[in-house]
Amino acid sequence: MNGTKEINIKRVNKGLQEETLDSVIEEIPLEIFVNHEFYAALMCTPLEVKALAIGFLFSEGVLTSINSINSIEEKYDNRICIVLDHEINTLCHSSRAITSGCGNGSVRTILLEEGSVKPIDTSCKFNALDILKLMSEFNSKSGLFKQTGGVHSCCICSNNSILVFSEDIGRHNALDKVVGKAMLSNVSLKDNFIMTTGRISSDMVVKVAKVGIQLIVSHSAPTTLAINIAKAANITIIGFARGSRMNVYSCEYRIY
Amino acid sequence: MNGTKEINIKRVNKGLQEETLDSVIEEIPLEIFVNHEFYAALMCTPLEVKALAIGFLFSEGVLTSINSINSIEEKYDNRICIVLDHEINTLCHSSRAITSGCGNGSVRTILLEEGSVKPIDTSCKFNALDILKLMSEFNSKSGLFKQTGGVHSCCICSNNSILVFSEDIGRHNALDKVVGKAMLSNVSLKDNFIMTTGRISSDMVVKVAKVGIQLIVSHSAPTTLAINIAKAANITIIGFARGSRMNVYSCEYRIY
Repeated sequence: MNGTKEINIKRVNKGLQEETLDSVIEEIPLEIFVNHEFYAALMCTPLEVKALAIGFLFSEGVLTSINSINSIEEKYDNRICIVLDHEINTLCHSSRAITSGCGNGSVRTILLEEGSVKPIDTSCKFNALDILKLMSEFNSKSGLFKQTGGVHSCCICSNNSILVFSEDIGRHNALDKVVGKAMLSNVSLKDNFIMTTGRISSDMVVKVAKVGIQLIVSHSAPTTLAINIAKAANITIIGFARGSRMNVYSCEYRIY
Repeated sequence: MNGTKEINIKRVNKGLQEETLDSVIEEIPLEIFVNHEFYAALMCTPLEVKALAIGFLFSEGVLTSINSINSIEEKYDNRICIVLDHEINTLCHSSRAITSGCGNGSVRTILLEEGSVKPIDTSCKFNALDILKLMSEFNSKSGLFKQTGGVHSCCICSNNSILVFSEDIGRHNALDKVVGKAMLSNVSLKDNFIMTTGRISSDMVVKVAKVGIQLIVSHSAPTTLAINIAKAANITIIGFARGSRMNVYSCEYRIY
């Protein structure tokens, strides 16, 4: 399964119309069951769904360590069943009812949950030119984007290389998936940083804070609330990292 | 309030670093109360929030006509209070618990709800060259995008002009907002079509189906599930509408 399908389309070009085939990104509803109960359905690509489910539960605060997973099974019909060695906080689950649109959870509610977003306590330094070099490599890496134009990408980087890479139809999914892959392959989230093709809204920063990443770099723009949360959580946001330029929106002491 | 804020940033350009100001798109949590009870919180720009709330409730199926609104009030602290002339379906509300990421509701669940997505019964014809002309006008229209790079836009068009235009941090919000504005200004959703800068995933098509729009045109890509739902709901999807080209993914009989 490569995550795309060939679809019959009508292509219009300069007034001429022709029947042809086009590669379209595949979207499925992935049902996540935790401890034998339905937890959530994610709309996503059918690729690397175990990593996606693990990263999603980690960024939701349901999972705190990969060692807490007793079993994980991919079942028929787009279903992932995870059994943990502990019960889950149902309060965390029910609070998701107030999400909507592209916002994954009410940030106000999340921030008010005691201890939900703790300030990051790592302060590695990162070189601006190294980041731009990695961003250029990152931009050319997405095969699915080249094929379909329908995905966002994320990667976890050290100072000089891309360690883990993922792509998905949603920027939140791509982030969760790359976090899950990092956890599965023992790549440190604390010592490295994350790059995304997507905009940095508050929910992206809350996810990054929850999993303990100190720096997020985007090709695109942040929002005011994302910057405010990042400042409170000691996270560095870099936006518009393109060519030889970037904007540092918070905690710029990490960038030299 | 213009929806942006000036933020102190550090700009890096060709190895040089300088302190400067940057315009950043504003993001707020908007709380929507229906019939005096909390219904949802949307992460959005603080612009045209009444239209956003109305469009959101319409695309959720909570509101079926603008005439059902007894009162709508914008309150302190980013809150919209809407009182309807009828009670709301709490089942519809609770089903939102399974949303996540960029997916606004489990499409599988939505499709299984009886009568939730009815096939569109209008079959207007639209000229491909007219659509491309309007897309070019649409692309140059977003002031907030030029200023901040952080928004998606949507518009409702007739065959030859843009009737209503909106922008917001999320592609779902921009769609809901433009639908709300059309309802407030008596612009027909049935006889016209919608354009978006965002990707067309299943949740976008479900929203479009729920509000009765027959054609959605995007600058960007659709997903397989979006196309399948569009075919079942008799909706035309056009993607990659750029310059003199476009791809018609479903119900191409509407395009000549």
